[in-house]
Amino acid sequence: MASLYSLSLTDMRRAVERGECTPQEIWTSCRQQIETHDAVVRAWQELTPTASGSDPVRGVLMGLPVGVKDTMDVLGLRAERGSPIWRGRSPQADAAGISLLKQHGARVMGKTVTTEFAYFTPGITVNPHRPTHTPGGSSSGSAAAVAAGMVPVALGSQTAASVIRPAAYCGVAGFVASVGELSLRGVMPLAHTLDAWGVLARDVADLQLMQSVMTSAPNPAPVMDSARTKPRAVLAIDGTAFGPVDEDMQAAFAQVLGDLAVQGVSVERDASDLLGPEGGLVWATRHRQLMAHEAAQTLAFEYFNDADGLSGSLRALIEEGWSVDAEAYEALKLDREVLRQRLRRVMGRYDAILAPAAPGAAPEGLAATGRPDQSRVWQFLGAPQVTLPAGWTDEGLPLGLQVVGGLRGDKRMLQIARWLQDELGWRGRLPSAFA
Amino acid sequence: MASLYSLSLTDMRRAVERGECTPQEIWTSCRQQIETHDAVVRAWQELTPTASGSDPVRGVLMGLPVGVKDTMDVLGLRAERGSPIWRGRSPQADAAGISLLKQHGARVMGKTVTTEFAYFTPGITVNPHRPTHTPGGSSSGSAAAVAAGMVPVALGSQTAASVIRPAAYCGVAGFVASVGELSLRGVMPLAHTLDAWGVLARDVADLQLMQSVMTSAPNPAPVMDSARTKPRAVLAIDGTAFGPVDEDMQAAFAQVLGDLAVQGVSVERDASDLLGPEGGLVWATRHRQLMAHEAAQTLAFEYFNDADGLSGSLRALIEEGWSVDAEAYEALKLDREVLRQRLRRVMGRYDAILAPAAPGAAPEGLAATGRPDQSRVWQFLGAPQVTLPAGWTDEGLPLGLQVVGGLRGDKRMLQIARWLQDELGWRGRLPSAFA
Repeated sequence: MASLYSLSLTDMRRAVERGECTPQEIWTSCRQQIETHDAVVRAWQELTPTASGSDPVRGVLMGLPVGVKDTMDVLGLRAERGSPIWRGRSPQADAAGISLLKQHGARVMGKTVTTEFAYFTPGITVNPHRPTHTPGGSSSGSAAAVAAGMVPVALGSQTAASVIRPAAYCGVAGFVASVGELSLRGVMPLAHTLDAWGVLARDVADLQLMQSVMTSAPNPAPVMDSARTKPRAVLAIDGTAFGPVDEDMQAAFAQVLGDLAVQGVSVERDASDLLGPEGGLVWATRHRQLMAHEAAQTLAFEYFNDADGLSGSLRALIEEGWSVDAEAYEALKLDREVLRQRLRRVMGRYDAILAPAAPGAAPEGLAATGRPDQSRVWQFLGAPQVTLPAGWTDEGLPLGLQVVGGLRGDKRMLQIARWLQDELGWRGRLPSAFA
Repeated sequence: MASLYSLSLTDMRRAVERGECTPQEIWTSCRQQIETHDAVVRAWQELTPTASGSDPVRGVLMGLPVGVKDTMDVLGLRAERGSPIWRGRSPQADAAGISLLKQHGARVMGKTVTTEFAYFTPGITVNPHRPTHTPGGSSSGSAAAVAAGMVPVALGSQTAASVIRPAAYCGVAGFVASVGELSLRGVMPLAHTLDAWGVLARDVADLQLMQSVMTSAPNPAPVMDSARTKPRAVLAIDGTAFGPVDEDMQAAFAQVLGDLAVQGVSVERDASDLLGPEGGLVWATRHRQLMAHEAAQTLAFEYFNDADGLSGSLRALIEEGWSVDAEAYEALKLDREVLRQRLRRVMGRYDAILAPAAPGAAPEGLAATGRPDQSRVWQFLGAPQVTLPAGWTDEGLPLGLQVVGGLRGDKRMLQIARWLQDELGWRGRLPSAFA
């Protein structure tokens, strides 16, 4: 059997069910991986103390380890939100999703590094595929920890590109739920009509498992969706309408479309029914303005009481947000309804939208987390999204594509992503240093 | 001049501007009203200590007093959410809306009593018009405090009927914003796609003022909307499709429609384009199921860790919520989109919807807060709503009507409510014991 830490969550469950190992052995294997590699990767903000005894196997998650982004409250662990303002903060309750996960049997391995308040200012995490490159953000630690085999799955959240992009840069699968699919009580918000929860994993089956678990009562145990659905028709958007796309990403995208055609999947490339006369840049700008206005409300406490504790880029976002007045804010929401209506129509013809998950591979340097252009329009819509590792640069860095589903079509989109992973081999691998 | 405490917020501002009084004198007058009457009314959970000096007059709210529902975090005051589970809880930050209000110059008078987690189990507050009758809930203390002249305005929130109903029972005006209009960071959620913020006041002008302030940057000072708009056509829904409506409410409603006709306002009574073949009860039930499912997620922490600390009715809601599975939850959201689409069409023909704000006057007894039937469909839609006092029972209890606007048409709806108040005299009065 492969090293325990390298198994997917789904395979860990199977191994425990078959009596091949205990959850405690898996915990120990993951913990060993962290101890060996986190001095380089720096994915973890704080680790749960390892208890001497082990919890009984219970729930569909059987005591298996899960990483949690540091914007989410877990009782007993600090939740600092990537900000010096909240250094040492002890939460008063588990976030809603954490309570659910625990009831389903998950064991929290620890808190993963986030950018400042889930916006752009990076934490200390590096890309496991190349430590001189950004892991992406804001769910930086969650993506890097999963990519380095430290946990099978980790929670993230997305307001612009915060799951899709780090998943792409770290070569793992990442899921963003439709906006509004789960109570975000106990998750530090950034922009309340854009924030969505997400999961990072090395296998789409694990994303399906987590999606089933997070949206279901613990008792009776949820029916877990693990179906594969072959798409008949997809709308392929090459991303150049949203911003620059690297040549290697363009090549990977073309390759993917070729693979789909071979499989008999119909591929349409004209996005004008969706993006309309406005075009991609207008929608991306509207996303940024809406996010800025809502972030200005959300972070009013920090901004007015401790502005020096905020980074310059976050202060700039808040100030842009205050310049979007109430009337402009309403107009942005009306615009969004127009775009959502178009998405509903488009999704009557296609099973999914395919697009680059980022402009290219993870850029060099740790001072920024890369461009969010390729995600803004999808998060503006609030649509479910998945990143799949679907190629490599010549330098050996992963390239991610994203699958976008219809509004609230989370399960169906994951089924399609599962098919793409299993049939076309869009799947990451542990970097050799961590295998 | 009238006693300072009895002025509206708008009139308080004017008095300060004219140099007729200071904000500190107003604070003291309101505080005196609380000291005289709160032993009976029991609207307050905790009061802000009165500082010896007074704050400088600043912002559009000039240091004037505001009450805050105890589900909302205010730094330095306990936030117990009406639950023994959170007795003594100290919040770690101001809620987003509270930070904004403070920046605009508001001074928090204290925390007002809420039902348990803003659901149905009452707190200790009584109705200022008749202390043996319920004030309604969940924003019980906010409505009673405003009705008793203890503060000019108080914040509330609504997930089912939590502002509209207590406003009606206490004979004050109450505003519920469109869902999603403000960051609810720091407000204890109940159901994340249904929760909305609100305000209670004795004058619609104050609701307009608060709506302008809460949705605007503090600098530059917001343009305050105080327009009156005469409706040309209204859709009048008598509420019998949602549940029983008392005879005196039916009579008040008929009277109101007559008054409107005299004013030349066109009144349509056929709601079938909105409620459709489903009818009112189906929509009210869908609201309850959606609320139950989301409440089960939101309160997972309390339910799984301290179920005995929850009331039986809240445990029952959570258990109903867990019985609504993920598929049913998605179906409820799709149903809501259908109803929202109908509302958009209907609001192309009418300027507002008029309906009873409650089945009748405040029922006798303090063990329950009255039926929420008359609000569910409007909160399911997430539409903006206003309660206006528009009649009296023979026993001298107030009867409230509600005005419902189009999605995100908060300002326009308030303008219409302002006209109805000013032209038709739909306005409450301080009960004689408090005048």
